[in-house]
Amino acid sequence: MNKRVVILGAGYAGVVTALGLAKETTVQEVEITLVNKYDYHQLVTQLYEPAAAAKRDTEVRIPLARLLSGKHVRFVRDVVTKIDLQAKTVMLQGGELQYDYLVVALGSETEYFGIPGMKEHSMTLKSVDEARLIRTHIERCFAEYPYDPRPEYLTFVVGGAGLTGIELVGEIANWLPRLCEESNIPRDQVKLYNVEAMTSILPGFDDDLAAKAEEVLRAKGVIFKVGSPIVQVEPEAVHLKSGEIIRAKTIIWTGGVRGNQIVVDAGFETEPRGRAKVNEYLQAAGHEDVYMAGDCCFVLNEQGRPYPPTAQLAIQMGTCVARNLCAELKGQAKTSFTPKILGTVASLGGRDAVGKVGKNYKTSGRVAYLIKDLSQIRYLAKIGGLMK
Amino acid sequence: MNKRVVILGAGYAGVVTALGLAKETTVQEVEITLVNKYDYHQLVTQLYEPAAAAKRDTEVRIPLARLLSGKHVRFVRDVVTKIDLQAKTVMLQGGELQYDYLVVALGSETEYFGIPGMKEHSMTLKSVDEARLIRTHIERCFAEYPYDPRPEYLTFVVGGAGLTGIELVGEIANWLPRLCEESNIPRDQVKLYNVEAMTSILPGFDDDLAAKAEEVLRAKGVIFKVGSPIVQVEPEAVHLKSGEIIRAKTIIWTGGVRGNQIVVDAGFETEPRGRAKVNEYLQAAGHEDVYMAGDCCFVLNEQGRPYPPTAQLAIQMGTCVARNLCAELKGQAKTSFTPKILGTVASLGGRDAVGKVGKNYKTSGRVAYLIKDLSQIRYLAKIGGLMK
Repeated sequence: MNKRVVILGAGYAGVVTALGLAKETTVQEVEITLVNKYDYHQLVTQLYEPAAAAKRDTEVRIPLARLLSGKHVRFVRDVVTKIDLQAKTVMLQGGELQYDYLVVALGSETEYFGIPGMKEHSMTLKSVDEARLIRTHIERCFAEYPYDPRPEYLTFVVGGAGLTGIELVGEIANWLPRLCEESNIPRDQVKLYNVEAMTSILPGFDDDLAAKAEEVLRAKGVIFKVGSPIVQVEPEAVHLKSGEIIRAKTIIWTGGVRGNQIVVDAGFETEPRGRAKVNEYLQAAGHEDVYMAGDCCFVLNEQGRPYPPTAQLAIQMGTCVARNLCAELKGQAKTSFTPKILGTVASLGGRDAVGKVGKNYKTSGRVAYLIKDLSQIRYLAKIGGLMK
Repeated sequence: MNKRVVILGAGYAGVVTALGLAKETTVQEVEITLVNKYDYHQLVTQLYEPAAAAKRDTEVRIPLARLLSGKHVRFVRDVVTKIDLQAKTVMLQGGELQYDYLVVALGSETEYFGIPGMKEHSMTLKSVDEARLIRTHIERCFAEYPYDPRPEYLTFVVGGAGLTGIELVGEIANWLPRLCEESNIPRDQVKLYNVEAMTSILPGFDDDLAAKAEEVLRAKGVIFKVGSPIVQVEPEAVHLKSGEIIRAKTIIWTGGVRGNQIVVDAGFETEPRGRAKVNEYLQAAGHEDVYMAGDCCFVLNEQGRPYPPTAQLAIQMGTCVARNLCAELKGQAKTSFTPKILGTVASLGGRDAVGKVGKNYKTSGRVAYLIKDLSQIRYLAKIGGLMK
């Protein structure tokens, strides 16, 4: 009987695992099932673009039917509710699946740090649907303003100055002049805030790149509140630790990620933020029939600290998991996972960006933007190659 | 002392009057003041396009500063609250104006026919701001649907099958496939209704053209309910006389127009729908120092029935009023107003249209669309010519 591999999640890690495994195996060797909430793969790193009307929703979404066409991967559109490690079963909203090998690539969830009101009154940017909510919400604020001209409608707060928060605030900054022109509202009536608890933006980026990013975004009209933890959120107000209150109809929270609750509930060994521990082959600690990839697990860097969750890491993990599952099925030796951080680029709206390639090459402006764009093309080429 | 002409409203009639008068007079002869709520002239006949995302808001709006540049027309951005015919004074929200001659070109208002709930729970399409409300509302329905998948979100009702209702429903029909693709929602989950109390659509159009329009729109998925008066509107429901209830988040009312309340309150002689009576020179009945133009007044056709309010009529009236004011100022003979209906074209979304030019030439499809487009260009050329 051929082995049943069930892959949970069709994000970067899940899709690369599924395609990689399908490419190196036959339908006689393995039965591959991919489970995902949506019937499309989302280019999550690009969501700030449709959120700020810089791209269409269809440009950051690839139908799984297209990705999996002609592959021996069965797609199940469903929502995972529970993993039973003992019974080797995955519970879905609409059924259950038995596995011999499980790949958990369920991504991360939003961490609200217990800030009162944040979960209830903020939007997040973790899916195409959420990007559409943000975009239409902002457009709606401009449309309603003439009928109820309170500054709350024209005040936009992005909480968190990590990569997601910075890229989103940059793209919104680029969008504002167009929104103002359409609505016949002077730009100086609009306020766009980036609020960050830590004392600097873009953690993980070198100080000079972060400073450059801040300078570029300030020039686009972004108002920074760094070292300003948010202590409470109400429906139209953000309270800062300083006592300052920013009144805004639009509050977007990008300030924290944590592991996936399904993973925590399943009993995997996790770190405090809920990300699962894996061994060098990306098997879940204590469960060799379960592989993990992407944001729901973590690996340590040379300094013994966890790598931040990024798409490039998820892609590399997916490649490794596919390779190790293949080895497992064919009785070959497994390979250790060695992450290779190629660089990081942060978009700053439009064709502005800052970034670093390799250990030393730092860049900003159009060149950085091009590198960012190339990294996307590289990914699409990779999955295109796996599809062949 | 030179005469003071005050023009109320910068719609088609008001703008043509102001520019026409300025062109034929000098600043020594006349002091012209144009009052308008917005600082731009609206191409009201095209509002269905931004309402359905077929044009940008800026494409149906011309800044008055640009239109009036270099002209001896003083622009006052304000809202008219009252006309005092005895004192020859116009009250504005922010002041008042004395006149020797007044031109009332305040347009029309929406007639709700006393349908309970219609005014409270429907949107109308009478300004660029309202077009933006409609557009963002529809986009928002698609964005919220995944989080609350009730069919109300995907049901859109346009009440009224006159020119405005038909052009709007046609353009929305053209937009739906794009909205569905963006939102990953199958088109057949979306319902677009046109509801009309009368037994046919497009009153004023020949029967065969109306039938053709209905056929084209049905093919685009429009569901017609003709001969179906709306008897009540609730926040998310339209009740028809038949007892049928259409549940929809989006209800747009285009079913009726009436004169302007300011005109009625001023004591002008009006017909039951509130449109003012004018003489052959377009002077208000009994008030020779007041001229009227556009939708707030009416003139009779050869059969003794009022012409329907249209842009082409408003433009011709504006031209006549400018000419007669000029004659008045220069002590020359005034000219009677003789409307010349060049034709009527109804857009059916995208590049589809039906229409009639002159008395006999009927057309549909691309040719009709081109004629529609040309009539716009003709208007822009006209005001361009007046600006010289």
